[in-house]
Amino acid sequence: MPNAFFVERVEEKRLIFDEIEAHHMKVVRVKPGDELVATDGKGTLYEFVLQELSKNYSVGRMLSKKVFHHDDRTVIVSVASMKWLRLRLILEKSTELGADRIEIFNCERTVARVDQRKVEKFRRIVKEAAKQSVNPFLPEVVIHEKLPRFNSDDLNIFLDFKKESISTLQEKIRGSNVVRIIVGPEGGFTKEEIREMQQDSISVSLGSRILRTETAVIASLSFVNFSIGRM
Amino acid sequence: MPNAFFVERVEEKRLIFDEIEAHHMKVVRVKPGDELVATDGKGTLYEFVLQELSKNYSVGRMLSKKVFHHDDRTVIVSVASMKWLRLRLILEKSTELGADRIEIFNCERTVARVDQRKVEKFRRIVKEAAKQSVNPFLPEVVIHEKLPRFNSDDLNIFLDFKKESISTLQEKIRGSNVVRIIVGPEGGFTKEEIREMQQDSISVSLGSRILRTETAVIASLSFVNFSIGRM
Repeated sequence: MPNAFFVERVEEKRLIFDEIEAHHMKVVRVKPGDELVATDGKGTLYEFVLQELSKNYSVGRMLSKKVFHHDDRTVIVSVASMKWLRLRLILEKSTELGADRIEIFNCERTVARVDQRKVEKFRRIVKEAAKQSVNPFLPEVVIHEKLPRFNSDDLNIFLDFKKESISTLQEKIRGSNVVRIIVGPEGGFTKEEIREMQQDSISVSLGSRILRTETAVIASLSFVNFSIGRM
Repeated sequence: MPNAFFVERVEEKRLIFDEIEAHHMKVVRVKPGDELVATDGKGTLYEFVLQELSKNYSVGRMLSKKVFHHDDRTVIVSVASMKWLRLRLILEKSTELGADRIEIFNCERTVARVDQRKVEKFRRIVKEAAKQSVNPFLPEVVIHEKLPRFNSDDLNIFLDFKKESISTLQEKIRGSNVVRIIVGPEGGFTKEEIREMQQDSISVSLGSRILRTETAVIASLSFVNFSIGRM
C-alpha cells in the first residue's frame, strides 16, 4: 500500500488524479470516504477524502495542505548502469533518502547498457518509491549514454573504497551547493576513466569492508544527509 | 562468490577448513593453486593458496596474515522479529556494516515470532554476509524470546521516526562504550512497551520520509560508524 498518491492537478479544494493513480487506488482497495495523503512531487503534501473513483480518474476533497521548503542544495546520486535488480534498488533507496537527482550512465565496463528509452521505466520506479516513502520532492532522473564530464563546480565524491574516509569531507559537503555521489560499474572503472574522473572528483572510502552497491549508496547518502542537516 | 572463507584452525602456515567451507569452495569452483582470502571471524585475515580440496575438509598454505584491532566499543543492532526477507536483509546489512552484535526479539505485535531454534539459521546468514563483505569480525547473534530490558548503562537509540533527529546524539555516541540501535516491529510497539522502553532508551527520528526497515538500519548504523570513526 502506497503511503501517498500523486495528484495531477488541484482546483480549489478538489484534488484530481489521473488514470494511473485511479488504477492504483483500485488495486490497493481504497474506497470513497477513505482519508488519504497526496503529493504533487514539488514539495506539497495534501490530506484528502476520496470522493469519486472511476476508470479514468479520481477526485478527492482537500482536508489540509502542508508545503515543505527545500533547502538550497542539490544532492545527486550518479551511478553506472548495472543489472536491473541492483539498479532498481538504487533508484528506490535514493528516492527514500531524498536525493534530488539520479543520473545513470554507461561506461567502458557496463554490462547492462541504458539508453533514453529506459528513462520512463526508471521514472516509474522513482515515483512508486516517492509514494511509498511520502517524499514530497520527486527526484529528477537523467540518463547519460556515456560517462559524463562532471561539473567541476560541484563536489563530486567517487566511492572507490580505497582512499581516505568520506568523513574527511564533512566540511566540504557543508560548504557545497551541489554534492554528487558517484558509483562505478561492478567491474570498476578503467584506468583511463579514473584518470579522466579524477580531474573533477574526489575518491573516498567507506571503510575496510566490501559493501554491496545499494548499501554503499545508502551509507554515503545518509552521511551527506546528516552533514547538511537533512536527516 | 564469497570474498573470504572461514578458517577452522591454523597450524603454523597451514589453514584447515571444515566440511561446510570445503563444500562452498567446490560450489564456487575454486581450485587448488588459487589464491584466496580467509578469516577467523576474530579479527585476522589470511591470504592463502588452496592446496587440497576434498569432501570433508580443505587445506591452504598461508601467504600473509593481517591482524585488525577492534576499537573498544560495541555497536549493537536490536530488532523486533519480522518477516523473513526483511529480517534476513537486516542480518546481512548489519554484518556488512560491521555491527558487533545483532539481537532479535519478540514483542506484542510480532507476527513472525522467533525462538532459540532459529539462532543457527540466523548465524549462517551472518557468516555468509561476513564472507561476502570480508568483515574479519563475525557479529554475535542473540535471540530474546520477549522484549528485553535494555542495559541502562548502554546508549539505547530507538528509531521511532517522530522525535528529534538522531544527529543530536553525535556527542553521546562518541562518549559511549555500547551503542544499541533499536527497531520495532512493522505494526509498531504498543503504548505499554514504549513506556517501558523509554526508561532506558532515547527516541529519535531519521527525517520526515518513511524509510523501509533495512534502509533505516543502514542509515543509522552508518551514522554511528561515522560518528565513532569506523567508516
